[in-house]
Amino acid sequence: MEFSSMYSKFRKKVYIIIYHTNTRAGRLFDLILLGVILLCVLLVMLETVAEFDLKYHSYLITLEWIITVFFTIEYLLRILCINKPIRYIFSFYGIIDLLAILPMYASLFLTGYNILTVIRALRLLRLFKILNNPQFTNHSYKLKKALIASRGKIVVFIYFVLISTIIIGSIMYLVEGKENGFTSIPISIYWTIVTLTTVGYGDISPQTPLGQFIASFVMVLGYGIIAVPTGIVSAEISKFNQNKMTHHQNPCVNCDNTDYPANAKFCPQCGHSFENN
Amino acid sequence: MEFSSMYSKFRKKVYIIIYHTNTRAGRLFDLILLGVILLCVLLVMLETVAEFDLKYHSYLITLEWIITVFFTIEYLLRILCINKPIRYIFSFYGIIDLLAILPMYASLFLTGYNILTVIRALRLLRLFKILNNPQFTNHSYKLKKALIASRGKIVVFIYFVLISTIIIGSIMYLVEGKENGFTSIPISIYWTIVTLTTVGYGDISPQTPLGQFIASFVMVLGYGIIAVPTGIVSAEISKFNQNKMTHHQNPCVNCDNTDYPANAKFCPQCGHSFENN
Amino acid sequence: MEFSSMYSKFRKKVYIIIYHTNTRAGRLFDLILLGVILLCVLLVMLETVAEFDLKYHSYLITLEWIITVFFTIEYLLRILCINKPIRYIFSFYGIIDLLAILPMYASLFLTGYNILTVIRALRLLRLFKILNNPQFTNHSYKLKKALIASRGKIVVFIYFVLISTIIIGSIMYLVEGKENGFTSIPISIYWTIVTLTTVGYGDISPQTPLGQFIASFVMVLGYGIIAVPTGIVSAEISKFNQNKMTHHQNPCVNCDNTDYPANAKFCPQCGHSFENN
Amino acid sequence: MEFSSMYSKFRKKVYIIIYHTNTRAGRLFDLILLGVILLCVLLVMLETVAEFDLKYHSYLITLEWIITVFFTIEYLLRILCINKPIRYIFSFYGIIDLLAILPMYASLFLTGYNILTVIRALRLLRLFKILNNPQFTNHSYKLKKALIASRGKIVVFIYFVLISTIIIGSIMYLVEGKENGFTSIPISIYWTIVTLTTVGYGDISPQTPLGQFIASFVMVLGYGIIAVPTGIVSAEISKFNQNKMTHHQNPCVNCDNTDYPANAKFCPQCGHSFENN
Repeated sequence: MEFSSMYSKFRKKVYIIIYHTNTRAGRLFDLILLGVILLCVLLVMLETVAEFDLKYHSYLITLEWIITVFFTIEYLLRILCINKPIRYIFSFYGIIDLLAILPMYASLFLTGYNILTVIRALRLLRLFKILNNPQFTNHSYKLKKALIASRGKIVVFIYFVLISTIIIGSIMYLVEGKENGFTSIPISIYWTIVTLTTVGYGDISPQTPLGQFIASFVMVLGYGIIAVPTGIVSAEISKFNQNKMTHHQNPCVNCDNTDYPANAKFCPQCGHSFENN
Repeated sequence: MEFSSMYSKFRKKVYIIIYHTNTRAGRLFDLILLGVILLCVLLVMLETVAEFDLKYHSYLITLEWIITVFFTIEYLLRILCINKPIRYIFSFYGIIDLLAILPMYASLFLTGYNILTVIRALRLLRLFKILNNPQFTNHSYKLKKALIASRGKIVVFIYFVLISTIIIGSIMYLVEGKENGFTSIPISIYWTIVTLTTVGYGDISPQTPLGQFIASFVMVLGYGIIAVPTGIVSAEISKFNQNKMTHHQNPCVNCDNTDYPANAKFCPQCGHSFENN
Repeated sequence: MEFSSMYSKFRKKVYIIIYHTNTRAGRLFDLILLGVILLCVLLVMLETVAEFDLKYHSYLITLEWIITVFFTIEYLLRILCINKPIRYIFSFYGIIDLLAILPMYASLFLTGYNILTVIRALRLLRLFKILNNPQFTNHSYKLKKALIASRGKIVVFIYFVLISTIIIGSIMYLVEGKENGFTSIPISIYWTIVTLTTVGYGDISPQTPLGQFIASFVMVLGYGIIAVPTGIVSAEISKFNQNKMTHHQNPCVNCDNTDYPANAKFCPQCGHSFENN
Repeated sequence: MEFSSMYSKFRKKVYIIIYHTNTRAGRLFDLILLGVILLCVLLVMLETVAEFDLKYHSYLITLEWIITVFFTIEYLLRILCINKPIRYIFSFYGIIDLLAILPMYASLFLTGYNILTVIRALRLLRLFKILNNPQFTNHSYKLKKALIASRGKIVVFIYFVLISTIIIGSIMYLVEGKENGFTSIPISIYWTIVTLTTVGYGDISPQTPLGQFIASFVMVLGYGIIAVPTGIVSAEISKFNQNKMTHHQNPCVNCDNTDYPANAKFCPQCGHSFENN
């Protein structure tokens, strides 16, 4: 009986540490987890740099195992202390947490799958949770709102761009042909996107005068239409800003006016004092 | 007599299916047409990928013929059921619909013209009709309005850019010359557009110090003037948003006018006082 | 005596044709001049395309001479009919008009200076005069106003960008060095501008890890600071739009209010009717 | 006694010349310093251009020494005349001023460290002080304000971009692999930044169809999300402009408040009626 209650207490405490971010222990745990994820991502990166891996291979592997054990314990604790473990296991973050530890254990039995440790870079997605931090909430909330409000217009815009891309790609395939690097329509469409977005690698570039003329047109188009998404988002954020400036306050008790500066002491419409409101 | 009335009924029904999108059958037809067009475009794309075409050539040809027959039937039905067939045949979409089926039949008698099947990618233009869908109408309407409103300013801007392009291109031809890849003025202008729009392929790039200095100037110019179309469209969409702000209010009780400033005390259309509303 | 008065009449007529654009003959002259300038620029372009020049050299030269004679007559008439010919000759357009005809005559005595015909592309500058056309005046006026209003902020921005460019260029020269293509500081600065403006030719690109890290930073910086000029111009055009919507009208005779919608029939502040204004 | 008072007078005078910019001598000193810094930076640049350095090496070295002596005197005077020399020596500009003169003296004893003269390009930072000039103050103040106000949103945005960059980079490393130039994850991330910011060098570009598909997605993403920082800054500057609109009016006769909406009838600070103003 006593063990059971101790276990129950322990579970509760672990639950608070892992899932609650507004306690001191919880915040500390979050910071440590953040650090370990960043370290882990750094390790994965460095392992892929051949010269670095050659020199420090054994150190890297040791650190990898330490992190894997840490992640394994964290994963098990998360399952243990939560009330609906099945739900967590099959949730988005549950699957990512599992994927982050599996490749290392798999490498014990199988060789050549070491490369899969790259998957743990997905753990970076956890870092998006930081945006729930009160310091950022306001800003990320406003950005999200502005982007959601402009979603409809942006979908229409992307739809238009995609169809244009296919049509221009097909035309360029006919104009330039296989001998100038436009080996197939998908490649032509790839080139069109590279050009329309003003990236311009230069691995494929038009060689015929007509092709260069069409390419110039595509560039000016791409240069011009970037104005559209920018204009949409600008206007949306601007609208949002304006609303905040003037609305969302208590109305004047005298004339129900809700449009006054944030620091107003008297209603600008009827002159009623706000102080004894 | 009976056949004639049956035919007349059939024509009416087909007309509704093909041209009316707000009936159930019409919407189903639109969806199927959409799917077939996308499939057709995918086929055209895959045929141009050499390795894929080698493996699955016969499958692709069979599918092509099925789609061509489908498009032919659709084309004939469109002519049959419409009241002014001549007008449809010579309309923009009528010509595209014909162009989409001709190359395949031509390939029976002529070889080497197979490549023209690419033309049917133009059928993608039909996909723009989706934007008439009520879900998108509002957004595409607003975007269209904003772009039309900023048309005048954008024409002036493009005119200015084009002339600058020709002048800068001519200067760069003199400065860099044939030995550095600026083989002619049209090529120089092509380079200027590539640079001004910040695409930057790198297939042609200035080699002389003076050329690089002018190029730097062109880049900063291009980087700077992108602000102009963006500013124009932003301001236009913003204005549109603000206008919307002042609409959608309670109409004036006297004249049903809904367009007045947020702080109006009298209706600007009929002079009715809003105070004792 | 009679010749003198005829000459004076002729001068007056020519003056009206050449300098006045709001008469019928003046507009016709402007259109012809526009056409000849465009033809002349096209000729200059085509001459530089080697394969084209080889085939049609004699035709091109003949056309060149016809245009040169036309430009010469126009130049002489401009001097003859204006009241202050010295002022015109040393004006900006006067010098360009002279430069446009000189190279062709010079080619009679000197060889190898043919290339200078490129200079006549400068005559394109005359095309900017079209923007004084009433159709465009309103738009180009507004754009000019917005750009002039944002001039101060843009100068500060460019000043900041230029100094950053020199500092980053110097650092990259130290980091990458001559062996990676950063042969001197001016070249490094050229690379910095190519990168900061997101042009990215790829003729020079960092090879060392540290260089690539700094380059990434420069790219994100360049990607980010494009927001600044865009924001400046957007805000300026937006302000301008708002003003136009509401100001610049006669004030209400009753309450001197100048802020009402363009189509208002009654003052929104005092309800006074505008119809019997 | 007399020498001491003379020295004290001299110190005061030098202090005013060096640190005060609003006296005539101070402004002259600033202009000379500006010129010398620009000359110095030009010299450093030219020295790194091999062909130029070969021809004029001795002239460059002489000029270098003159400037170094000038900078040394300026540095010593700055220490002498200021009241808290220690504070200046360890201040940001103090360290830069020292770094600007040290390499030249070091080159007397050591060879091969000549390259460090590049460090004096850092003296360019002093040029930012010009922005304190009253002509620019207003503009740079507004830009600074707008950027500071949008700081929070931009941090969230950059955080989001950086994490996306790492995830996309890892995926591209897996997809493309070492044989296509994506030799390690850091290199992959470098490529992702090059692509996302639409710089597009083309030194590394995807070769596999899947890689090109993901690259297309990254480009469209990069092309789209540039709207976000632009929108943020636009909206912020726009807000700023609007606020300005409501300032700069006649102050309230009762409380001298200048911040009230354009259509206010009562002062929002003291409730004084504007009607009988």
